[in-house]
Amino acid sequence: MNSLYIDGVVLTPLRKIKVEGGDVLQGLKSSEDCFTKFGEAYFSSIDPGAIKAWKKHTIATLNLIVPVGEVLFVLSEENGKFAKVKFQEVFLSLEKYNRLTIPPNVWFGFQGLGTESSLILSLSNIEHCSNEIVRADKNEFGYKWV
Amino acid sequence: MNSLYIDGVVLTPLRKIKVEGGDVLQGLKSSEDCFTKFGEAYFSSIDPGAIKAWKKHTIATLNLIVPVGEVLFVLSEENGKFAKVKFQEVFLSLEKYNRLTIPPNVWFGFQGLGTESSLILSLSNIEHCSNEIVRADKNEFGYKWV
Repeated sequence: MNSLYIDGVVLTPLRKIKVEGGDVLQGLKSSEDCFTKFGEAYFSSIDPGAIKAWKKHTIATLNLIVPVGEVLFVLSEENGKFAKVKFQEVFLSLEKYNRLTIPPNVWFGFQGLGTESSLILSLSNIEHCSNEIVRADKNEFGYKWV
Repeated sequence: MNSLYIDGVVLTPLRKIKVEGGDVLQGLKSSEDCFTKFGEAYFSSIDPGAIKAWKKHTIATLNLIVPVGEVLFVLSEENGKFAKVKFQEVFLSLEKYNRLTIPPNVWFGFQGLGTESSLILSLSNIEHCSNEIVRADKNEFGYKWV
């Protein structure tokens, strides 16, 4: 388990277990530090080049895993309108098979890489609730999406 | 929510929510009847034509979702060696986007369909524990895998 520089953000290497007929890929166990509570599991697909940014959960902690394709996640500690921002870039894919834990109140966005749609599994400690999500335009905060 | 004929087996239609840049696919919410407890989330990939059968969990209840490819699940109520068996076939894929709940003590096996590897998300109410899994050869029980 590696702590990234933003408080509460964690990148955890996951194991891929060789099995005849198709591998087993670790996800999340209830005994792990990154697990607090189960609220909802859902998938987000992201088209190649598409950008979904920015959003910030004010209550939910997310555990994110990418078993298909490759996704760039960009995290930002503060609101760029009023503060000097810093960005943390994290690449998730089956090759870079890690779990990304994002605590509440961290701005993040993500972009599909490669040539096919990518798939993100989100494990949230609460059920989806649009009231706890704050959104900003992808051009906010000065991050240069390519 | 539809109850299949095997006691405790449930097939639940899931929603696919259109989102620009990539759809969101429902998985499991803690408020749903099919959720009891979170133990572990993991993926199993299954190669085209490959068969993983048979196994039976003696403790775990599994919630299974197939967001990539297509998988045939075959369930059997009883041990074919000593009883007249019945088989329940369930096809899961993004097109037939359902969640399959398998309670303990139901034999099941699965086969990858199509031409690419398929992906199964398993949400189990306990962490993986090999002691609670019983296995039998795929040729047991008289089911004709093709």
